[in-house]
Amino acid sequence: MQSSEFRSLKLDSTGLVLENGQLRILDQRLLPDAETWILVENPAHMDVLIKRLSVRGAPLIGVAAALSLAVCALAQPSEQVLRAEAARLRASRPTAVNLMWAIDRILREAPDMAPEKIMASAVEIFREDVRMCEGMATAGAALVNDGDGIMTICNTGGLATVGAGTAFAVIQKAHEMGKRIHVFACETRPLLQGGRLTTWELKKQGIPHTLICDGMAATVMRSGRIQRVFTGADRVSVRGDFANKIGTYSLAVSAHHHSIPFYPVAPMSTVDLNCPDANAIPIEERIASEVLGVEGSFGAVRWAPEGTKVFNPSFDVTPAELITGVVLDRGYFPIRDFQAKFQVRNGATQLANSI
Amino acid sequence: MQSSEFRSLKLDSTGLVLENGQLRILDQRLLPDAETWILVENPAHMDVLIKRLSVRGAPLIGVAAALSLAVCALAQPSEQVLRAEAARLRASRPTAVNLMWAIDRILREAPDMAPEKIMASAVEIFREDVRMCEGMATAGAALVNDGDGIMTICNTGGLATVGAGTAFAVIQKAHEMGKRIHVFACETRPLLQGGRLTTWELKKQGIPHTLICDGMAATVMRSGRIQRVFTGADRVSVRGDFANKIGTYSLAVSAHHHSIPFYPVAPMSTVDLNCPDANAIPIEERIASEVLGVEGSFGAVRWAPEGTKVFNPSFDVTPAELITGVVLDRGYFPIRDFQAKFQVRNGATQLANSI
Repeated sequence: MQSSEFRSLKLDSTGLVLENGQLRILDQRLLPDAETWILVENPAHMDVLIKRLSVRGAPLIGVAAALSLAVCALAQPSEQVLRAEAARLRASRPTAVNLMWAIDRILREAPDMAPEKIMASAVEIFREDVRMCEGMATAGAALVNDGDGIMTICNTGGLATVGAGTAFAVIQKAHEMGKRIHVFACETRPLLQGGRLTTWELKKQGIPHTLICDGMAATVMRSGRIQRVFTGADRVSVRGDFANKIGTYSLAVSAHHHSIPFYPVAPMSTVDLNCPDANAIPIEERIASEVLGVEGSFGAVRWAPEGTKVFNPSFDVTPAELITGVVLDRGYFPIRDFQAKFQVRNGATQLANSI
Repeated sequence: MQSSEFRSLKLDSTGLVLENGQLRILDQRLLPDAETWILVENPAHMDVLIKRLSVRGAPLIGVAAALSLAVCALAQPSEQVLRAEAARLRASRPTAVNLMWAIDRILREAPDMAPEKIMASAVEIFREDVRMCEGMATAGAALVNDGDGIMTICNTGGLATVGAGTAFAVIQKAHEMGKRIHVFACETRPLLQGGRLTTWELKKQGIPHTLICDGMAATVMRSGRIQRVFTGADRVSVRGDFANKIGTYSLAVSAHHHSIPFYPVAPMSTVDLNCPDANAIPIEERIASEVLGVEGSFGAVRWAPEGTKVFNPSFDVTPAELITGVVLDRGYFPIRDFQAKFQVRNGATQLANSI
C-alpha cells in the first residue's frame, strides 16, 4: 500500500470511519439520543476513548486501536513511539483479547517501520473483521429455527465490530433469512448497553424485540418464550470458558436450568490460545458511581446513598460446562468439538501457529 | 377500644405513624434523599399511595390499608362505604396476599359497624405485624453462622413492615447477636428498592454491606462469598411456591446451581392457604417507562429508544423445588415440613380454620 493509496482509502462501518487519512469514531456514550462523531487525534486519545467507553465492543476496540497506531506511524514513523503507544493501548482494556491480538499484529511490522505496511496490516484487520462477522452470522443463523425466541445481553452488533457484529450478526442474519424471531434484550446494568444500543440497532433493522431488566431473564426463560441464547465474548479460553459482559454468567446458569441452548459468538481473534481456562482471564473492575446510579448523555442520577460500597466487575466468566457450543467465524463448534480442536496437551501455543 | 382511647393512641414505625387520629406514611419514593411524610386523607388516597409505591412492602400495605379503613369508619360509620372502600383497596396490589388478609379481617367487623371495634382490629393487625417480625427474626437468625455472606433482594426491612421487617429482620437480628455477616444487596431493577432503601436501612443499622447490580448476583455466588440467601415474599402457596419481587426467581436458580441455601421469610399472613401452587398467583405488570429508564425523587432519565416494547412484571414466582425452607414468624420450616404442614389432600381451606 502506497501513501497516496492510503490518502484515498475509505473504511466505513457503523461506529468507525477512516477517510482522508483521518480516523473518526461514533461516540457510543451518546447513543441513542445523539450520533456524534469524534476525530481521534492520536493513540493517547484513543486510549481515553476506550477507557470511557466511547469506543466499545471487543472486536471494534482491536480494529480501532490498530488503525490509530497506523495513523500515528504515518505521521511519525518511529519504532520507539509506535512501541510506547502500543503499550499504552494494550493496557486500556485488560479483559478483551482482540485488542492484544490486533496490537501484536501491528507490532510485527515495527522492526521495518514502514508506515504503509503498518497501515496495510490495520486495514487487513478491519477487512478481516467484516469477513469474520459474515462467517459468524452464517454459522450461527443455521442454529436458529423459525419462530425462535432469542435472548441476548449487552451490545454485539455493528457498534461492537466493524462488520455486522457477533451475536447480533447471527440474529440479523436469521431475520434476513426470513426466520420469524423475537429478541429479548437484557438491559445490561450497570452501563445499559442492551437498553441503549441493542434496542437502537434492533429498531434500525426492524427486528421484533422486547427489552427486559436483567433480573427478569430467568422468568422469561421459565415462561417458555426463549429457545436459545446468543452472547458475545471478550475472551474465550481453549477449553471454552469465556469472559463476557457482567450478567452473562447469570444468563448461562438460567439457560442451563431451563435446558435452553446457550452459545457465545466470537471471531477467532477472541479465542486466546494461550489461555487454558477461566481462571486465567483477568477481570477489570470499574468505578462505584456506575452502580450507585446511571450516567450518560441522557442525564446523570444517583439513587443509592453516597459512599455505599459496591462490587462492579465489568465482566464475568462462564465455564464451558454451561455452554452448548461456540459460534466462530469458521463455523459452529459444539463445546466438545471446540475443546477437541483447541485444547492440546503439549501446549496451546504450538497449535496457534498451525491454524 | 373507646373513641377517646383511639384519639390518644400512637402507633409508630419506620414508615407509618398513627397519631391524634391521623394516619401518616413516609413517602418511600423519595428515599434515601428526603424523608417526607404524607397525611393519608382517606382510603381512596391510600389506594393512590399504594399504586404509586409511596407505600410498599407486602406486610406494610396490609397494615396501612387496614388503618386507613379504620380511620375512615370512625369519620363515616357506614357499612356501605366501608365495603366500597375495601373493594377499591383490595385491587390496588393484586399479588400481595397480606392486603386481602388484612382487609378481610376488617370486614369481619362490617356487619356490626362499630368503628371502635374496626379500629381495634386494625391496631391488632399492626401489633401482630411487630410480633411476627420478631418471630421471623428469631427463627431466621438461628440459621445464620458467624462469618456468613448473605444475599438479599428488594427491601424487606422496617420500611416494608411496621416491625423490623421480614428477610431484613433476620439479617438485623443476626447482626445484633454479634454474628459477623456481610450483606450483598441486589439493586432490584426496575424500581431499585435494594439500591435506594435496603442500602439506606443497612447503613442506618451499621451492618457491613455491598451493593451490586442484579446481573452480578450469580458471579458473587460463584466466588464463594455467599453462604445463604434470604428474601421476602408477597404470597406463599401451600406447597411453598412463592411470589416475590421480580429477580427473586433468578436468585433462586443461581443459589440452587451453587448449592447455596435459599429461604423466603414471611409472616403467616403471607401464606395463602387457598393457593395450591405457583400457577394460581396473579402477577401484576407495570408501565413500560420503568424499564426504559429510571424515575424518582433523585431525577428521571430515559436511555432506551422511546416506544421500545418492554416486559415489566412486578413479581416472579419461585417454585418450592428451589427453596431450602420457609422462615415464618412461628418458626423455621424446611420445605418438606412446610408442605407437610400446609398441603392437605382434602382441600387447604379446611386446614385454614384449624390453625
